[in-house]
Amino acid sequence: MTPRDQAVAARIAGEKLRNLPSRKRASLLRRVASALEFNASQILAANQQDVRDGEGVLSDALAARLELTLDRLESLADGIRELSEMEEPIGRTLRQTELADGLNLRQVTSPLGVLLVIFESRPDALPQVAALALRSGNGLILKGGKEAARTNRALHEVITGALRPDVPSAVIGLVETREEVGDLLALDDVIDLVIPRGSNAMVRHIQANTQIPVLGHADGICHVYVDAAADLDMARDIVLDAKTDYPAACNAMETLLVHADFAGLEALISALREAGVTVHRGAEDLGREYGDLACSVQIVADLDAAIDHIHRHGSGHTDAIVTADTEVAAAFLQRVDSACVFHNASTRFADGYRFGLGAEVGISTSRIHARGPVGVDGLLTTRWLLVGQGNTVSTRR
Amino acid sequence: MTPRDQAVAARIAGEKLRNLPSRKRASLLRRVASALEFNASQILAANQQDVRDGEGVLSDALAARLELTLDRLESLADGIRELSEMEEPIGRTLRQTELADGLNLRQVTSPLGVLLVIFESRPDALPQVAALALRSGNGLILKGGKEAARTNRALHEVITGALRPDVPSAVIGLVETREEVGDLLALDDVIDLVIPRGSNAMVRHIQANTQIPVLGHADGICHVYVDAAADLDMARDIVLDAKTDYPAACNAMETLLVHADFAGLEALISALREAGVTVHRGAEDLGREYGDLACSVQIVADLDAAIDHIHRHGSGHTDAIVTADTEVAAAFLQRVDSACVFHNASTRFADGYRFGLGAEVGISTSRIHARGPVGVDGLLTTRWLLVGQGNTVSTRR
Repeated sequence: MTPRDQAVAARIAGEKLRNLPSRKRASLLRRVASALEFNASQILAANQQDVRDGEGVLSDALAARLELTLDRLESLADGIRELSEMEEPIGRTLRQTELADGLNLRQVTSPLGVLLVIFESRPDALPQVAALALRSGNGLILKGGKEAARTNRALHEVITGALRPDVPSAVIGLVETREEVGDLLALDDVIDLVIPRGSNAMVRHIQANTQIPVLGHADGICHVYVDAAADLDMARDIVLDAKTDYPAACNAMETLLVHADFAGLEALISALREAGVTVHRGAEDLGREYGDLACSVQIVADLDAAIDHIHRHGSGHTDAIVTADTEVAAAFLQRVDSACVFHNASTRFADGYRFGLGAEVGISTSRIHARGPVGVDGLLTTRWLLVGQGNTVSTRR
Repeated sequence: MTPRDQAVAARIAGEKLRNLPSRKRASLLRRVASALEFNASQILAANQQDVRDGEGVLSDALAARLELTLDRLESLADGIRELSEMEEPIGRTLRQTELADGLNLRQVTSPLGVLLVIFESRPDALPQVAALALRSGNGLILKGGKEAARTNRALHEVITGALRPDVPSAVIGLVETREEVGDLLALDDVIDLVIPRGSNAMVRHIQANTQIPVLGHADGICHVYVDAAADLDMARDIVLDAKTDYPAACNAMETLLVHADFAGLEALISALREAGVTVHRGAEDLGREYGDLACSVQIVADLDAAIDHIHRHGSGHTDAIVTADTEVAAAFLQRVDSACVFHNASTRFADGYRFGLGAEVGISTSRIHARGPVGVDGLLTTRWLLVGQGNTVSTRR
């Protein structure tokens, strides 16, 4: 099968999937969850082989993300069961109008069609993404990291096996080579959305090489702005949390902006250093994404300068202000043009699970389609359904 | 000014615009409407020169679309006043959750940023688009047809003049050459959405030459499917309306699908011919967009065949079924994957004004961002605003 054949087959199988009754689609997810538990030893054996092959080859970080455990599989299965219980995402009415007597218009949610999800290393992304695609009625093509090839194949086989005989296995396709990805990225007539989950370089490469819309973000250059009217204790809590809770996360703080009149600058910097953070002061580091225990610090004259800095050097991901001044806070919330804008809260809250979206497809810094943390909604489009009694525009009988 | 300078200036001026109070932005629109009326003779004089220059050069259709009248200007001004009275589109709360005690999340509507609108011939698109951009708080770059260069310049000068001194004129930029458009299409870091309004070829060219999302449609290959259980009179009304009310419209019927058991096939074809429609029967014409008084007719075995035909040959714009069988109708509405799916109503209803959207930015056949007739909402994105009391994810004080 060529990549085009696979994508077309996923689209056709997706039509079958989305036309199943809601209850049936939910029960498919429960079957997938049980199949993962039932076949756990087979999946973990494949994973152990991948792990052994990676020894001495992969970095510690990659190796850690590669390994699956029974606990992890069970928690994946639980997550999929939760997804099966969420409100039916397809066919929800978003808008309803009577255009004329007996002429009724509804805008309803519908699946996008076919998703291409490209992820690195972590094989646990595969069942999560597959479950989201099934829940939202979409066909799916998956490309995982080659370090996890055996694990991905085992997961894919178990999941598509659980769909039989209701939905053709082709609804979730698996590709393994870079060449196939290149071919898939050219299929803007069959694939509706690309979701890359991996390094900034990988995301940027994909964005530059496809006409298909890409959901995600290349950079997460998040700011915390400590205003003159900030409480020092609160500022310290938020800054430490935003930087040190999980420094590799895209929603971690990369630049600390401090109002020139804030009295606690040195206290903040000391607290960061005590927590093991390397503090860079100087213009050459602005707009840098460290991704580890390091950050830039910049003093700004006022709110205007802080916002200007964020618009100039940020990535439109998540930016926060710490202040007790409600007027300054309101202006910040109104004016900062980022996916997430926070007042007196850590940037780390920018996350689909924490936002209560039930699942996270990714965090989008694009302004189009979906912005910020994206849940199942980001995998849907809408259709306009109009029901009349023979209505025409020229005669209106 | 280079195209990049113009786009950046539009973005910066757009920030100024979107941060004006709601009342102020609405009153700017009223000023624009009055300025169009106040300067009507200057605008119409420029237009008369364009019309004279086009004599013997432009086709009759193009020439007709080029000409402005005082009546048209006044109705444009009225439309802009209506837009000023619509509900404030920016800052609407779409979703609201309390994530924890005192930690409140809101998803609010926000302007996209900078729009690039490319239109052919019709200069009356300029004030409409400018008003939509102003209402939605977006910067705008416009490129009109060169036949209307003088009219466009006059309209642009009057409109930007009316914004002074509240918003810099750069908020609406005008470019005149194809080279500038080429440069603008490369600015995916500054321009957020491209809206082409013109021929299929023009839209397709733009879609193929930019990484910026494009809102619109290249093709409008709409179907009417007359089911076995259709009433002949209703079928005739709808088919005639869909084909003959305005054959050049993108929502006009191009292919008539008829169930093999429908008794009125010949009556339908006679009615079309009597209305001056050339009827093409034969496989080589499937999926053709005539855009005038002509259509294809295809007999299908059943609903499955009709839907398969629509998915294979259609453009996902607007497709309708005529039937008295509610089960068949429900299956059609559920299964046809087009922006607009109608039951017992003419395809001609697919239109932003008829849908009650207040204005029409365009009709999108893309599944991403906005689908079908798009109003001001299509020019908006969202931001997530989180307000806390010093909340952090690691300690939760």
